[in-house]
Amino acid sequence: MAFPKKKLQGLVAATITPMTENGEINFPVIGQYVDYLVKEQGVKNIFVNGTTGEGLSLSISERRQVAEEWVRQGKNKLDQVVIHVGALNLKESQELAQHAAEIGADGIAVIAPFFFKSQNKDALISFLREVAAAAPALPFYYYHIPSLTGVKIRAEELLDGIQDKIPSFQGLKFSDTDLLDFGQCVDQNHQRQFALLFGVDEQLLSALVLGATGAVGSTYNYLGKKTNQMLEAFEQKDLASALSYQFRIQRFINYVIKLGFGVSQTKAIMTLVSGIPMGPPRLPLQKATQEFTANAEAKLKSLNFLSFPGLKDGNMEACS
Amino acid sequence: MAFPKKKLQGLVAATITPMTENGEINFPVIGQYVDYLVKEQGVKNIFVNGTTGEGLSLSISERRQVAEEWVRQGKNKLDQVVIHVGALNLKESQELAQHAAEIGADGIAVIAPFFFKSQNKDALISFLREVAAAAPALPFYYYHIPSLTGVKIRAEELLDGIQDKIPSFQGLKFSDTDLLDFGQCVDQNHQRQFALLFGVDEQLLSALVLGATGAVGSTYNYLGKKTNQMLEAFEQKDLASALSYQFRIQRFINYVIKLGFGVSQTKAIMTLVSGIPMGPPRLPLQKATQEFTANAEAKLKSLNFLSFPGLKDGNMEACS
Amino acid sequence: MAFPKKKLQGLVAATITPMTENGEINFPVIGQYVDYLVKEQGVKNIFVNGTTGEGLSLSISERRQVAEEWVRQGKNKLDQVVIHVGALNLKESQELAQHAAEIGADGIAVIAPFFFKSQNKDALISFLREVAAAAPALPFYYYHIPSLTGVKIRAEELLDGIQDKIPSFQGLKFSDTDLLDFGQCVDQNHQRQFALLFGVDEQLLSALVLGATGAVGSTYNYLGKKTNQMLEAFEQKDLASALSYQFRIQRFINYVIKLGFGVSQTKAIMTLVSGIPMGPPRLPLQKATQEFTANAEAKLKSLNFLSFPGLKDGNMEACS
Amino acid sequence: MAFPKKKLQGLVAATITPMTENGEINFPVIGQYVDYLVKEQGVKNIFVNGTTGEGLSLSISERRQVAEEWVRQGKNKLDQVVIHVGALNLKESQELAQHAAEIGADGIAVIAPFFFKSQNKDALISFLREVAAAAPALPFYYYHIPSLTGVKIRAEELLDGIQDKIPSFQGLKFSDTDLLDFGQCVDQNHQRQFALLFGVDEQLLSALVLGATGAVGSTYNYLGKKTNQMLEAFEQKDLASALSYQFRIQRFINYVIKLGFGVSQTKAIMTLVSGIPMGPPRLPLQKATQEFTANAEAKLKSLNFLSFPGLKDGNMEACS
Repeated sequence: MAFPKKKLQGLVAATITPMTENGEINFPVIGQYVDYLVKEQGVKNIFVNGTTGEGLSLSISERRQVAEEWVRQGKNKLDQVVIHVGALNLKESQELAQHAAEIGADGIAVIAPFFFKSQNKDALISFLREVAAAAPALPFYYYHIPSLTGVKIRAEELLDGIQDKIPSFQGLKFSDTDLLDFGQCVDQNHQRQFALLFGVDEQLLSALVLGATGAVGSTYNYLGKKTNQMLEAFEQKDLASALSYQFRIQRFINYVIKLGFGVSQTKAIMTLVSGIPMGPPRLPLQKATQEFTANAEAKLKSLNFLSFPGLKDGNMEACS
Repeated sequence: MAFPKKKLQGLVAATITPMTENGEINFPVIGQYVDYLVKEQGVKNIFVNGTTGEGLSLSISERRQVAEEWVRQGKNKLDQVVIHVGALNLKESQELAQHAAEIGADGIAVIAPFFFKSQNKDALISFLREVAAAAPALPFYYYHIPSLTGVKIRAEELLDGIQDKIPSFQGLKFSDTDLLDFGQCVDQNHQRQFALLFGVDEQLLSALVLGATGAVGSTYNYLGKKTNQMLEAFEQKDLASALSYQFRIQRFINYVIKLGFGVSQTKAIMTLVSGIPMGPPRLPLQKATQEFTANAEAKLKSLNFLSFPGLKDGNMEACS
Repeated sequence: MAFPKKKLQGLVAATITPMTENGEINFPVIGQYVDYLVKEQGVKNIFVNGTTGEGLSLSISERRQVAEEWVRQGKNKLDQVVIHVGALNLKESQELAQHAAEIGADGIAVIAPFFFKSQNKDALISFLREVAAAAPALPFYYYHIPSLTGVKIRAEELLDGIQDKIPSFQGLKFSDTDLLDFGQCVDQNHQRQFALLFGVDEQLLSALVLGATGAVGSTYNYLGKKTNQMLEAFEQKDLASALSYQFRIQRFINYVIKLGFGVSQTKAIMTLVSGIPMGPPRLPLQKATQEFTANAEAKLKSLNFLSFPGLKDGNMEACS
Repeated sequence: MAFPKKKLQGLVAATITPMTENGEINFPVIGQYVDYLVKEQGVKNIFVNGTTGEGLSLSISERRQVAEEWVRQGKNKLDQVVIHVGALNLKESQELAQHAAEIGADGIAVIAPFFFKSQNKDALISFLREVAAAAPALPFYYYHIPSLTGVKIRAEELLDGIQDKIPSFQGLKFSDTDLLDFGQCVDQNHQRQFALLFGVDEQLLSALVLGATGAVGSTYNYLGKKTNQMLEAFEQKDLASALSYQFRIQRFINYVIKLGFGVSQTKAIMTLVSGIPMGPPRLPLQKATQEFTANAEAKLKSLNFLSFPGLKDGNMEACS
């Protein structure tokens, strides 16, 4: 069988790309970041160079280097490293896919093109197939995010018979609130051949009840442990506890959304919670304001989301 | 206490307004319709003159007559009859609210205005309060449907302290897929003082797990029994069965959405399933095509949603 | 011939509905308002109960009274009084159309329904035809405003052969920036049988060059004189002067749009410029802030749009 | 003075990137294409690697090669060659800007980023400034296309004081129908220091009357001559003739828009009209259907837009 690999499941952190104050990639902290995810958050899968990682703000050369570093640092520590190789142009996407295979990544993910847009399911599959073909032995994940790409193609339609067209297809990241579409993906996936990863962190419980096999998101960088507790409660059919965890997570996300929540703010929050400096984002994004950071910190404290067991004098390495 | 009434809970059918072939209201079948909901679908609450009931396509005089007939026919059969009294102009909304009180309805519901739109929470509450004040003793429900009204005001913000401003406020119909907002409504409703009714039928299970106290929708007219089975399975923590019911319901809704699904099509489906003639919609809506009806019927049959136990020669009364 | 009436042309003021401080209609000032439009602004056509007139915030009974008063006060002073009779439900729209005929209005206008929406050209025409049929002898204008109604039906397609379906059709109010669509309406109207009235005041010059036969808008209440000067310059092919007028008008509109510009603000500006009290809007709209009014006044002064020749002590009647 | 260069004015063709049947760039026909634009269409300015040129579907390396070829072939034939260097990531945009300077292009143009989006005017200018700084001696044009980028920042606000921040700023391509915004750009450009190029081909006359100094568009590849006739008529204040040209152009564009009109279709039309093979588009775009091409050809013929004076046996070189 072509894909004997164990299924991608559970929480997948959409990694931040750490940067220095002058906007260059801060490679040295990635090792520390891996340890933090595994030891403090209990998260062993990552999704690199996606939206959270500012993948599309990096040059192709930088995207290659970032991918390499995560694969290198994750060796023997992480379960799976999936590289997002989506780009506006097919050639670069193919180059990144091939590179991901060469460096030993565990999978690739691709967003639908969103400048020129696929007008229908067949056009989209044609595009995705060309990318997948550049790395035919790597598990392929489709990153479904209609609010961004404007693609109205339903995921459940795409799934139907997709392995005939893309043999390496292994699942999708579903970043949308259309739970009819998501439910019908699960419904047809009765052999559980695909990973159906939900991508709207603050609504995860609602997707779990529909049969989500995992989740990809930015908040699992710093709320992974809490979210894992929710997953465990759900697994044990303790719905009351699961809901209690979900509500606490929602309170935080709801709060920061009202303040204005994007990748810049995620970097600030992760710096706060992990102690690892994530740095500023790259233009066109602008650094989160000090006011945001102060408010987010107060909220994290009030929700008891800022505890560093064993943490001494703010030195993160003391944790690991 | 002002509202000793028992909480509105469980399934609430958004009733269709039956019409004759020439587009006038078909009052005589409403009694039969009540019996059908209660006996065949196990649905004992209704929401009258909403979107499904073409409330905004009826004149004020017709809305009054329709409300009266449902209250009259529902007496001693239905638990609660809620009348939607929303209108583009405040005066007519107030007139309908007062009328609902006079005829002994169990509650009123109001949509946010959507020609001129409330620019913020305070403006919206000012409007709703004026309507509620016309029927101060009737439970008041806010019909939250941002996709239609363009109102970006979050339901969870509206809920905060609302009884200080609208003492008769008793809950909301939440017709949106933003389950962060819905979850945060439930989160703050810890004393369960409000009815938090979910309004996206095909995603109900995802809202149940977040603590929805009931649901309002058009499909409960003809899939009420199946949905009640899902509610019961969920209540008993039999998540696998609940999910199985949800998926079967989704298969139907997913199918008709692709064919084009609105009030016209709901009328055709209800006629098929119940045997009670719902008639055509009123302009600007146009009658569902025969092709739609034939396809919907085939799908209903294939899903086993068209069984009439004890039904003889298509005579609906034989059922009751 | 059925419609020997002279064509509706030039500027048409979309009238405000004056209200008292407690939100009731201030009928007594309508006579004064007519005189002001004719004498101070040089505007002799009006469009009553449209968006600017809060037509959809008035009850049917109020809409009838407002229409009657404008017809009565406009007699022998105004050229044409067109009544907007659009409503969400056909029956009330028909009632208003018939009423407009009875009181001697010069035409009716109808917006496409926007709760339930016409799905295609034929469905829209079916709806409009039913309204027109209630007043077959009155010139009928279609109010095309796709941003509001969501109707993607192109005006130029609607125009094609429309008099076969709606014999009383006499033109349209085109409230959109799609000047390809507008241009193609003019292109096919080579016999100039229809009034093609542009409805985006701040872009009027761009529609004039395409052959607009007139314009309907709220700003002609208080900038009618300036706009008439632009029309005259354009008529005389003095494009430089026409552009100079257009830019001065744009400066004002651009400025107030940034402050937040809607019917509430139009009422405040008209009160400032005309001296006639327009009063507050009705809920869900809220009164313009004092800050808006102060800023608008300063801008009007700086653009020299606030001169009252012969005006003494703010008494408007002294002007006329 | 830093920019003694003559102003970019008149028609600017947004060039197609010709491709071979297997999707590689067809460099050899670019020379022929230049001759065609100059001799047959009277168009002497080009905008390379924009939307029409599928710039964002090309790799950085291809974008460099395409730019080079147009500059080389345009030497002594074209007036100005402007290179679009916009990209999702700043580094590649800067690389392309620097390259444009090195090869002797006449200007660069940049779109606002549209994956991560600039939240306000200052953020957008910060981004644009970084690109401009990579080629400080090249005239810089901002490509304003809010429908694509979602940037609600008004062009007229951006223009205000922009040369203090971006000294090489020389104008904008305004691809939107908001003629209030465009008009206010012209209004403040009273010293005519900037090129204000309109980008909605089918509405050009409406922008000319507001003072557009030129136009950038895809249709000038094949309707340049007709559009130049419109410009001349307008220049001579022969508005009737100008309008007649505009309407004929609109009839064609209106027709193809209804068939589905994008870059794929532009390639097919240009192949038809010029006789130069433009080839298929690259994925995610798909080739125009034969049905489209046949319909477009019939329409071109009926409008007399397909005449090849002096053209023998379809050999384009015979024309030049």
